[in-house]
Amino acid sequence: YSLFITSSLLIEIDLSSYQGDQTNHAAGNRVPCRFPFSRVSKQDLAFFENLLPGRTIVDPDVLMTHNVDWMKSVRGSSELLLRPQTTEEVSKILKYCCERRLAVNPQGGNTGLVGGSVPVYDEIILSTSLMNQILSFDQVSGIITCQAGCVLENLSNYLEERDFIMPLDLGAKGSCQIGGNVATNAGGLRLLRYGSLRGTVLGLEVVLASGKILNFLTALRKDNTGYDLKQLFIGSEGTLGIITAVSILCPRRPRAVNVAFLGCSSYKKLLETFQCCRGMLGEILSAFEFLDSACMKLLEKHLKLINPIAENSFYIVIETAGSNADHDKEKLHNFLEAVMASFLVTDGTVATEDAKIKALWSIRERVTEALTHDGYTYKYDISLPLEKIYQLVEDMREYLGDKAKNVVGYGHVGDGNLHLNITSHSKDQALQEAIEPYVYEWTARYRGSISAEHGLGLKKRNYIHFSKHPEAVALMKDIKHMLDPHRILNPYKTLPDQG
Amino acid sequence: YSLFITSSLLIEIDLSSYQGDQTNHAAGNRVPCRFPFSRVSKQDLAFFENLLPGRTIVDPDVLMTHNVDWMKSVRGSSELLLRPQTTEEVSKILKYCCERRLAVNPQGGNTGLVGGSVPVYDEIILSTSLMNQILSFDQVSGIITCQAGCVLENLSNYLEERDFIMPLDLGAKGSCQIGGNVATNAGGLRLLRYGSLRGTVLGLEVVLASGKILNFLTALRKDNTGYDLKQLFIGSEGTLGIITAVSILCPRRPRAVNVAFLGCSSYKKLLETFQCCRGMLGEILSAFEFLDSACMKLLEKHLKLINPIAENSFYIVIETAGSNADHDKEKLHNFLEAVMASFLVTDGTVATEDAKIKALWSIRERVTEALTHDGYTYKYDISLPLEKIYQLVEDMREYLGDKAKNVVGYGHVGDGNLHLNITSHSKDQALQEAIEPYVYEWTARYRGSISAEHGLGLKKRNYIHFSKHPEAVALMKDIKHMLDPHRILNPYKTLPDQG
Repeated sequence: YSLFITSSLLIEIDLSSYQGDQTNHAAGNRVPCRFPFSRVSKQDLAFFENLLPGRTIVDPDVLMTHNVDWMKSVRGSSELLLRPQTTEEVSKILKYCCERRLAVNPQGGNTGLVGGSVPVYDEIILSTSLMNQILSFDQVSGIITCQAGCVLENLSNYLEERDFIMPLDLGAKGSCQIGGNVATNAGGLRLLRYGSLRGTVLGLEVVLASGKILNFLTALRKDNTGYDLKQLFIGSEGTLGIITAVSILCPRRPRAVNVAFLGCSSYKKLLETFQCCRGMLGEILSAFEFLDSACMKLLEKHLKLINPIAENSFYIVIETAGSNADHDKEKLHNFLEAVMASFLVTDGTVATEDAKIKALWSIRERVTEALTHDGYTYKYDISLPLEKIYQLVEDMREYLGDKAKNVVGYGHVGDGNLHLNITSHSKDQALQEAIEPYVYEWTARYRGSISAEHGLGLKKRNYIHFSKHPEAVALMKDIKHMLDPHRILNPYKTLPDQG
Repeated sequence: YSLFITSSLLIEIDLSSYQGDQTNHAAGNRVPCRFPFSRVSKQDLAFFENLLPGRTIVDPDVLMTHNVDWMKSVRGSSELLLRPQTTEEVSKILKYCCERRLAVNPQGGNTGLVGGSVPVYDEIILSTSLMNQILSFDQVSGIITCQAGCVLENLSNYLEERDFIMPLDLGAKGSCQIGGNVATNAGGLRLLRYGSLRGTVLGLEVVLASGKILNFLTALRKDNTGYDLKQLFIGSEGTLGIITAVSILCPRRPRAVNVAFLGCSSYKKLLETFQCCRGMLGEILSAFEFLDSACMKLLEKHLKLINPIAENSFYIVIETAGSNADHDKEKLHNFLEAVMASFLVTDGTVATEDAKIKALWSIRERVTEALTHDGYTYKYDISLPLEKIYQLVEDMREYLGDKAKNVVGYGHVGDGNLHLNITSHSKDQALQEAIEPYVYEWTARYRGSISAEHGLGLKKRNYIHFSKHPEAVALMKDIKHMLDPHRILNPYKTLPDQG
């Protein structure tokens, strides 16, 4: 069994010795068995085998890999995996499950970080992996329409051959699927430039819990005929419907790309560098990412990566993407001169060739991987006002003291998005209780969001109140009830158990 | 009584002689009186006068201007206008109206084109005009938060003084309000560059029909905690809730702006120019608009505008906005050389100074105004695949023959959005019946949208089926029922009477 987490990385997980956390069934995880579903019967199995011959999987070895998330932090006990190829098959599955009150866990690339993509108990796993066809691409408008199971990197490669790019890019591109990206409203590395999926996704095809198919696929950039229903499903983590196809507006492939890797001695100087960068790079700025020195140490230690510049407190990855290489070089040169002259940046290196660009990007992209080698990782994905971002890391480091192995911060400065990660030698209930709800209270104090881009899934659902008012949560529950009255779709996810 | 439709234009409408169309009550407009509301009683009036002293208006002269849309195409007969200043006042009004089953017509700048912003019968008009405070602006993130009644141009001016711009701009900026812009998901001239309001609106405050206040205001760019409820209200035309405040992400003010006004001999060449433009201007392209020669003739005839270039079949307005004036000039120069050398463009002029830029833009922006002087105007706002856009104008011209005075096309080529306008000497039922449903059938044949950016309002609501499947319309009705079970909010708008 193998799992890609970046395009260039293959992690082998030996599941024969893997015991899982077994925490789903423990009281500590606060998942009450609110509405027990009957187990899949022989008759049910016969129905599915007739509908999906050869694609109705009960093999325990295969199921094991689908029951656990890639971080090995959450584990379900599903005994049935379905692999539909068409929207009609998804519709028939859900219609049957709705009538029989069988719970369903929709699963894409299973790269989520909040336990949203695996079953909690014995929900049937509906994998979109075989729904991987590109349905159409319009060279004039740049609109691609494809099935939900297309892997992000495959779409990127397809588009780059045609002189376009996907409007989103993320570390998990080698295995995450576009349906899952949309269902979780994934952010990633290009959001600063191309905006969120709420703007770039033009249309969806969705199957509701009842089996009803909603077709909002479109090849149009603008459509104001009634309520924009597709927005309900973007970011709903499979709890309101299963996304089966997507149309997305793709930007032209930029003719020139440059990456700069810079060092800063303080977060204050990093922010000043960002302000200067927005002014001087303007429309060609396509990413502004950071990692702290603690991240760099983990990369050096666990992945043997070599820091390409002098040691520093903070490292910045800046990417430019534009239509004129000379203009872009000149803008970047002027910017670098300005930040070096004013001592905002103390050292740096620039890449214009593909291989070196990839190498510099991989420093930022492989932090997640380095963390997995450092022990058990508690992951937090926080939105904050820019000036507060790093204070959370510092406060947490001081607050936890010796309790944690490492407290590190990295993320998307340009979007106000911090990835706060805390490692320990092994899973540590006392440490988790020290972190939570402290981290959420801290975030709420500065009116941040407790999930910037990862979603709520299983792990964060009961903390929604730190970012949303009770009236909003009540309305979300009304919507859930309207679309999935029997709560068969991805139960125990997104919405809180109480309130 | 005066009404701004562009920043530089003041139209005086003499309403003393205006009779209105009186068509709302005619069978022809297909507005069944489905749920008659009791008239406002003396007790009701006393309640409102106590809540809004001096801002509870019953003066028939004032009401007349609020009962009619600016095109004088739709007229209601409301006898009560309320002017709240705070969200709490809006909440108290709606709570009372909900209990008393009094229908409410939310009204912003009243610049809509589909009859969505005026009452149909005697709905109470709730004007947001006095809710015009800017609540906060963050210079670092560029996020502005303001009340719904802020006029778009005032926000633009406020931001430009602080080196930012609004992400949207439209001809009606001098009177349209940001709450109305968001409620109708307005598109406009900058969508090509900065995307739709679904991406740039970060937060909303909304009052539901029950009077409940939903506060989703935020100063964060990313937030994935539960369903994105604000999207329900964007583009819902006041039928699901009243937007009382908005937070929007604003781009930096570009350091250099250039406008080119070009002539093309065919639509095919215009499209080739667009493709070339996207490649060569890339990230600095901020608008690509067109008008046909019929529009130019109306501008010359009714507004005495002078065509700045040689006569041609099509005219293009291209705007660039960037961070480096020299680079932008060079890109524009290279592009113009390329399209002139390949005979895609036969004549053109370029402006870099503010006054000349405004003059060139006004040619495009004042087409709407020129049409109002040409007689009664039938307006259609259609999304189509780029290559089909102008074929609709040509087919319509041929199909209508002598029945119409003028059939003209203009709009946002970059967004696939055509404004098809048909004029006649006076309102002409036979002409309208010739146009509709022909225009909608034509659009549906090429999988276009019958409303790209104007919304459905009163006029287009019964044509929704040409762009949306019955399952989607049914779900919209479920959402309406969930949020406004007594149907007090902007009745007879957006949703179709049947099906």
